[in-house]
Amino acid sequence: MNRIDGRRTDEIRPTSIEVGVQSYAEGSAFISMGDTRVLCAVSVEDSVPRFLRGTGRGWVTAEYAMLPRSTHTRTRRETTPRGRTQEIQRLIGRSLRAAVDMHRLGERTLTVDCDVLQADGGTRTAAITGAYVALLHALKALRDSGALDDLPVNSGVAAVSVGVVDGDAVLDLCYEEDHRAEVDFNVVMTDAGEFIEVQGTAEDGTFSRARLDELLSLAESGTAQLMEIQRAAIGDISG
Amino acid sequence: MNRIDGRRTDEIRPTSIEVGVQSYAEGSAFISMGDTRVLCAVSVEDSVPRFLRGTGRGWVTAEYAMLPRSTHTRTRRETTPRGRTQEIQRLIGRSLRAAVDMHRLGERTLTVDCDVLQADGGTRTAAITGAYVALLHALKALRDSGALDDLPVNSGVAAVSVGVVDGDAVLDLCYEEDHRAEVDFNVVMTDAGEFIEVQGTAEDGTFSRARLDELLSLAESGTAQLMEIQRAAIGDISG
Amino acid sequence: MNRIDGRRTDEIRPTSIEVGVQSYAEGSAFISMGDTRVLCAVSVEDSVPRFLRGTGRGWVTAEYAMLPRSTHTRTRRETTPRGRTQEIQRLIGRSLRAAVDMHRLGERTLTVDCDVLQADGGTRTAAITGAYVALLHALKALRDSGALDDLPVNSGVAAVSVGVVDGDAVLDLCYEEDHRAEVDFNVVMTDAGEFIEVQGTAEDGTFSRARLDELLSLAESGTAQLMEIQRAAIGDISG
Amino acid sequence: MNRIDGRRTDEIRPTSIEVGVQSYAEGSAFISMGDTRVLCAVSVEDSVPRFLRGTGRGWVTAEYAMLPRSTHTRTRRETTPRGRTQEIQRLIGRSLRAAVDMHRLGERTLTVDCDVLQADGGTRTAAITGAYVALLHALKALRDSGALDDLPVNSGVAAVSVGVVDGDAVLDLCYEEDHRAEVDFNVVMTDAGEFIEVQGTAEDGTFSRARLDELLSLAESGTAQLMEIQRAAIGDISG
Amino acid sequence: MNRIDGRRTDEIRPTSIEVGVQSYAEGSAFISMGDTRVLCAVSVEDSVPRFLRGTGRGWVTAEYAMLPRSTHTRTRRETTPRGRTQEIQRLIGRSLRAAVDMHRLGERTLTVDCDVLQADGGTRTAAITGAYVALLHALKALRDSGALDDLPVNSGVAAVSVGVVDGDAVLDLCYEEDHRAEVDFNVVMTDAGEFIEVQGTAEDGTFSRARLDELLSLAESGTAQLMEIQRAAIGDISG
Amino acid sequence: MNRIDGRRTDEIRPTSIEVGVQSYAEGSAFISMGDTRVLCAVSVEDSVPRFLRGTGRGWVTAEYAMLPRSTHTRTRRETTPRGRTQEIQRLIGRSLRAAVDMHRLGERTLTVDCDVLQADGGTRTAAITGAYVALLHALKALRDSGALDDLPVNSGVAAVSVGVVDGDAVLDLCYEEDHRAEVDFNVVMTDAGEFIEVQGTAEDGTFSRARLDELLSLAESGTAQLMEIQRAAIGDISG
Repeated sequence: MNRIDGRRTDEIRPTSIEVGVQSYAEGSAFISMGDTRVLCAVSVEDSVPRFLRGTGRGWVTAEYAMLPRSTHTRTRRETTPRGRTQEIQRLIGRSLRAAVDMHRLGERTLTVDCDVLQADGGTRTAAITGAYVALLHALKALRDSGALDDLPVNSGVAAVSVGVVDGDAVLDLCYEEDHRAEVDFNVVMTDAGEFIEVQGTAEDGTFSRARLDELLSLAESGTAQLMEIQRAAIGDISG
Repeated sequence: MNRIDGRRTDEIRPTSIEVGVQSYAEGSAFISMGDTRVLCAVSVEDSVPRFLRGTGRGWVTAEYAMLPRSTHTRTRRETTPRGRTQEIQRLIGRSLRAAVDMHRLGERTLTVDCDVLQADGGTRTAAITGAYVALLHALKALRDSGALDDLPVNSGVAAVSVGVVDGDAVLDLCYEEDHRAEVDFNVVMTDAGEFIEVQGTAEDGTFSRARLDELLSLAESGTAQLMEIQRAAIGDISG
Repeated sequence: MNRIDGRRTDEIRPTSIEVGVQSYAEGSAFISMGDTRVLCAVSVEDSVPRFLRGTGRGWVTAEYAMLPRSTHTRTRRETTPRGRTQEIQRLIGRSLRAAVDMHRLGERTLTVDCDVLQADGGTRTAAITGAYVALLHALKALRDSGALDDLPVNSGVAAVSVGVVDGDAVLDLCYEEDHRAEVDFNVVMTDAGEFIEVQGTAEDGTFSRARLDELLSLAESGTAQLMEIQRAAIGDISG
Repeated sequence: MNRIDGRRTDEIRPTSIEVGVQSYAEGSAFISMGDTRVLCAVSVEDSVPRFLRGTGRGWVTAEYAMLPRSTHTRTRRETTPRGRTQEIQRLIGRSLRAAVDMHRLGERTLTVDCDVLQADGGTRTAAITGAYVALLHALKALRDSGALDDLPVNSGVAAVSVGVVDGDAVLDLCYEEDHRAEVDFNVVMTDAGEFIEVQGTAEDGTFSRARLDELLSLAESGTAQLMEIQRAAIGDISG
Repeated sequence: MNRIDGRRTDEIRPTSIEVGVQSYAEGSAFISMGDTRVLCAVSVEDSVPRFLRGTGRGWVTAEYAMLPRSTHTRTRRETTPRGRTQEIQRLIGRSLRAAVDMHRLGERTLTVDCDVLQADGGTRTAAITGAYVALLHALKALRDSGALDDLPVNSGVAAVSVGVVDGDAVLDLCYEEDHRAEVDFNVVMTDAGEFIEVQGTAEDGTFSRARLDELLSLAESGTAQLMEIQRAAIGDISG
Repeated sequence: MNRIDGRRTDEIRPTSIEVGVQSYAEGSAFISMGDTRVLCAVSVEDSVPRFLRGTGRGWVTAEYAMLPRSTHTRTRRETTPRGRTQEIQRLIGRSLRAAVDMHRLGERTLTVDCDVLQADGGTRTAAITGAYVALLHALKALRDSGALDDLPVNSGVAAVSVGVVDGDAVLDLCYEEDHRAEVDFNVVMTDAGEFIEVQGTAEDGTFSRARLDELLSLAESGTAQLMEIQRAAIGDISG
């Protein structure tokens, strides 16, 4: 099988993560996976949503947006976030909350803004992988300032897409592949090899349990590679 | 392990499906799964959304809403559908589209309104299971009126929730179980035992690949039982 | 004169009211008048709107909505309630507030959700007649729980439509009659035979004072019949 | 009984109507009833709403708004019209449509903007009474320009409020009386003494049929007086 | 050069300002400049926006709207204020805030509603000129009631438009001139001959610095004339 | 006088413009002025707004937005653009339209998205200066593809802010200076030294005509410097 950009089926795109790119944000990271580029900025507030006040626990939430010209043709700015956008925001938020120990974070809210500057497929998984690094960047700053004793982190987190394209299971789909995929999965994992989220959809037809197994194995390999790159960017994930 | 309502871990709640409950709708079904109750009504239009005009292909879409007092305490009516609602609507729509052969349907739109009269967990999967029956009800009427030659159906479709509650994998969670679940899956399957959608989330902690396998097996069993009930309600699914 | 469904001009449609149909609501009633069906659910809150705080007085308010496929062709869900919907909500709310003694209710809010499952004319008057029963159901539960000493009720309340169709004054119009009516009245009355609300509109032409008198007499007869059915459903209205 | 401003119970407030006050509108009238002041402006378009295209029939619609400081304390500008505003707009529109023969009007839309500059009670009925004059002003201009052969008018239209204040039936309530009223009616009549709309509400308690009769007689007297003033402003109502 | 209405290039339109036209407002003024007519009403509240609470300083804000038939063809009512409307509101607010000494005003908010009854060009500058008079009217009433010791006024304020029409610099453009103008300026000045705001736009082409100088001289002359009319309306501006 | 960052009063911040940074846009530029950074992307459509159809003329429009964490503390994403945002969008659009010959452009729409990645004052003027370069980038591509015969450009365009800070007139204010400024001007000029827009506001107090002259001279010097940098980025502005 020949992938559109010559990759092997189990190969991720060239990926880099740069930390500290936004001067005013408490933490930030800029991730490039192939032509997909996402800017992640963390804001820290010393308060929590109403339902957590007085519990001693913190909160992590995320917003996701695409610049109008991140796409091949211009996309209108959203006034109320569309269904797809809200789904992605909820996915990023859940994934990051799994990474953080809310008791040790204390009554603080971390808001992670993921703004897609360029979109060539896999923007939501790239956003999660980059946002985790930005989050760690912010948490380290809190620790270094004395506001936290240590890093309130349960585990490292990275995400990747896998899918079936022209009958083959492939890792980290670009836009062109995603567009043609029969089956599309987004998988979020920890550095202990456990799952946080598995979202698999048959875009055209259905998929068997054997195929599902094959795709999860690819995802395990992909997230392991991404965690190497995260570690290089931020230092050892466990702090 | 003792479930809150005394069920075995692999047992679905008492389920019934009644067909033809809405006089004016082209197809309708009322599904009860335990205390969860969803009214599904199908509307048929002889036109399709703009992006399908002239393609000879049809479209299936779904809306989902809860009556304000379907819940234990009153829920405000939504003005713009919330993120959760939109996510559910998109899931129901995708699941039903997998069931229908759009070429044989022709340039028609089927809109399925799923209104939750009472919510005791598993409303989105009950909506899919009931909506499939309402859809078949409408398609049979189209066939009987001569508008269609046969039923443009790819496969039967049913959905069920599975999850991990107090460390045990269980089938068809009620609200109380769902609330306490560590892991929560919604699984949509065909009558050929293939998957249409797998959405699994760790609500608290993470889950291993072995656990995922266990949950999928429960879901296979649950959807098979539901398809029996669907068949009894509508007649043989293949038409 | 022959009515479309064979009724006499002074005859209401077959009507039934079922109490306690919604498990989670504090009070509920399901009313069928011919093919019109409305589900009424009461929610009780131990607080009042800002303008009543500290006055010792309670509040009753209502919401009204139609399921998309309650109608012959599908009606879109409303985002902001349309003018007609708001008018109906305000009418139901005023009618129910006339029934309740706000001082004896105390600082509580009763919200009545009236959801139309099927619409064959007269939905707003059926909603009032059903909502009154649901309200009494909730108030009796409050009394039985000891929260209230007695039922804070001024009077029984029922409503009916009357109108002029093909030159004849008729009682309780179905959709087809309503559509053709020259004059259309909604009348809300107490069990003492007094009026709470009279809304009469000439849809086509005008109406004389003699005609108005004839229509009000029909309405008096109709609401008296409905109060019999209410009493049978809930027990004696005065308590 | 002593009314707050010394009027007899069957006396309307000093009322004047000035025609042609808005230079750019096709028809306009400015009505003062006591301290209530409404500016009515008619716009003529040579098209009709979609549901009337090709029928040869015209349409009349109305909008109603209050300047923020028409009231004793400032009222916020409405973004989406509130329920009360929509109810009033619909009432004005229905009343004016009863006055106009849509076939003879032809496929034209008349939009009447009723803007309340000062509000001392009875703004909706003053708006109807003034809007009718503005409408006639516009129709005469269409006739004089040759666009219409004659005035497509079914009848003259005027409206007035009546109510029960401190136990007495009174005509044309000012704000202070309206605020204290037990019963509140808005009545729209033709110059032939027929009714177009009767809207009666018990604000506090209920009302008997005898009381209703008394109020309607007052309304008949009030609208007759207003039609004299309309005639003086625009010339004989029948054209 | 011949202006459309025969004026000299440095001549303002016939202008009048009437004070106290709205009975319920704390201050009001009605300004006519040619056929442009704006009603300005001031509301006084004994509170300030959150960002000023506890500072001892007051606030002045403005709203601006056009009646639908203030224009040659009907303009739809705005739901959310359009960009142009918001720009004008912000300009009026800034101009009036420059006139008032917020410390001497104390923690009060003055809201000025500027409603355009008829629009023949220059509505925003007429609104500023009229609103200043309405503001002084309200401040004098506060002083006379003893709520203020003196008038907390920094300076008189008036505004005028200037522009280039058919190659000539002209003062106070009417709608027809404004429509054809190559360059359009709105200038807000104090009675000490200083500037508060200069907004100049090349609508077609560009403008030189010499042209800018010529336009500002015209504006100085125009605002000086308007301040004479303001003084005649309200009495000496300094109090 | 000492400026916060050590600049002379007539010195702009270190400025760079990079062309072609967005792969999918028809034209793009990234401008940095000190710590202010704006990404400008041009989209080309072969159609025009309704009011220009059939005229043979094109259109240029702009949108402006700030990333939530472009600012010192997080700014919420806008749902409907705020007044300030709309004002800026309109200013950028007008400025760019002055640069382009719409007849030679033909019936095309150029939409320029200006997204602020980091905001340290002067974002609207930086957006105009960068957007002009992105526009030229897109127009050159249209010319090179043969869609245009030559560049439909009237003149080069650049913009800068000037203001009065601590009593001194200064060029190109950073956020800290802007925050403290008594007077604030945004000036848009052509490469022929003419003005397109002058917007001057007294934030605190007023300004004299002499001060205005001084500020315009600074702006002339600043835009001249920026045009040098534009030329270096895109090549000679005249094409």
